[in-house]
Amino acid sequence: MSTMKHNPPNPEQLAINAATVRESCNMRQTVDALRRHRIGGISPWRDKVAEAGLKDSAKMIRDAGLTVTGYCRAGLFPARDRKGRQQALDENMRAIEEAATLGAQCLVIVAGGLPKGSKDLIGAREMVRDGLGEILDHARGCGVPLALEPLHPMQCADRACVNTLRQALDLCDELDSSKGGALGVAVDVYHVWWDPELKAQIERAGEKRILGFHICDWLVPTADLIFDRGMMGDGVIDIPMIRSWVEAAGYRGMHEAEIFSAKNWWKRDVDEVLVTCKMRHESVC
Amino acid sequence: MSTMKHNPPNPEQLAINAATVRESCNMRQTVDALRRHRIGGISPWRDKVAEAGLKDSAKMIRDAGLTVTGYCRAGLFPARDRKGRQQALDENMRAIEEAATLGAQCLVIVAGGLPKGSKDLIGAREMVRDGLGEILDHARGCGVPLALEPLHPMQCADRACVNTLRQALDLCDELDSSKGGALGVAVDVYHVWWDPELKAQIERAGEKRILGFHICDWLVPTADLIFDRGMMGDGVIDIPMIRSWVEAAGYRGMHEAEIFSAKNWWKRDVDEVLVTCKMRHESVC
Repeated sequence: MSTMKHNPPNPEQLAINAATVRESCNMRQTVDALRRHRIGGISPWRDKVAEAGLKDSAKMIRDAGLTVTGYCRAGLFPARDRKGRQQALDENMRAIEEAATLGAQCLVIVAGGLPKGSKDLIGAREMVRDGLGEILDHARGCGVPLALEPLHPMQCADRACVNTLRQALDLCDELDSSKGGALGVAVDVYHVWWDPELKAQIERAGEKRILGFHICDWLVPTADLIFDRGMMGDGVIDIPMIRSWVEAAGYRGMHEAEIFSAKNWWKRDVDEVLVTCKMRHESVC
Repeated sequence: MSTMKHNPPNPEQLAINAATVRESCNMRQTVDALRRHRIGGISPWRDKVAEAGLKDSAKMIRDAGLTVTGYCRAGLFPARDRKGRQQALDENMRAIEEAATLGAQCLVIVAGGLPKGSKDLIGAREMVRDGLGEILDHARGCGVPLALEPLHPMQCADRACVNTLRQALDLCDELDSSKGGALGVAVDVYHVWWDPELKAQIERAGEKRILGFHICDWLVPTADLIFDRGMMGDGVIDIPMIRSWVEAAGYRGMHEAEIFSAKNWWKRDVDEVLVTCKMRHESVC
């Protein structure tokens, strides 16, 4: 029985993944809203950065003094043929360079699922390994750590065939045995809270390999496999406990609220969303 | 890359989990339909057995010559207080006796999720371990093996906090170190297909501990976390590969089709459903 109480987080550690306000805000509006609410970190997405322009995005983030906790996202390696896999690699190379321009602390890597029509999960996972191996040197050269994010097993088929921290860390061991920090993981409580090995694998990851910590909540019931995440505190995840584990492993970075919520939070005003994130971060994270 | 071809299954190995036809059939209708289609195995559910009467159910199954591949279901151990946990144990004891009366090859154990209002996943898992420990002797005495079924991690909060074969087998090791077959696992491809450790954990389970093999398919997209399973062949699971692994481990039992499908198969005529199960079992399993 876990009855340990945890210290509340430092409010300055809150960051917002821009997907949380994606329906109401473009890049400029997101940055302005974060300043308005004195939130110090952002994780922008490629589509919004492209829309605003890469250099302009970098400037507005820099001018606002925001930490870029991660850049979303690259990966998506598996494809039906060599051409598709090469296109994925090219996209990854560009994303690495964009992440460098933005000064991102890491580039978030979502593995990708099964190629259309395929049932070859083992093959898809080999493509992920090979793809990561192809881009790692460029990422290292650009000073952009790659944060491989295991996604929840319910997203294995169509989004990401890397589904546990153990699996992600096995890939880190294989591809970056030096453990220099060029390849690590993003720990999103939504994806990993259920994992019986979570504590052990967070310990295994350690400070060098925990490149991001994402927060939201698991709702009961959950109505959609992708777009029904909860605000921190509205679900069943013991966020303080998981935070205590990443902190015990040495993680000192920000806590990035990332809430895909098509029917609820995406429909609300950005100020309400950010005020709620701040309050919940202090009270239940 | 998996390119190995597998032998088709023996058609006589097909069994039907009664949930697959639950909306169209009571116990009698299910048994009659299985006879009509010369399907040799059934896995009945407690509610339908209670409705038809336990002894009458046992007689109709026996008269039809059906193998009872499993009895669904017991478990559901976590509860908010001692009284709730005791009620769960009492239900489990009754289910064990019913399974014995029915001549079931095993009693399917679904762990149960978080008690209402709780975020204590570690505590819930301890309740599962303790509950299994409480009922195991009675099950052994009744000659009813307990088949702990890890459910997909997306069902962790509300249905089952045992979510991987590794976790289930760790419990088996802890509670039944003799490996005599009193406690084992049910391998349902829907719940475990995504697991990077699947092959290794099936090997680890071995013949003694694989008490059931359940088939259906993972649809892309999946519209509901519980009731949108696919007919074998309509999704992305490489069923023959997983079957080859359980067979390599020594499993020689039946292949139980268990399809929760509120919007599709549950709405169809039982004959159509069973004919399709038979065809798909031969062609894609």
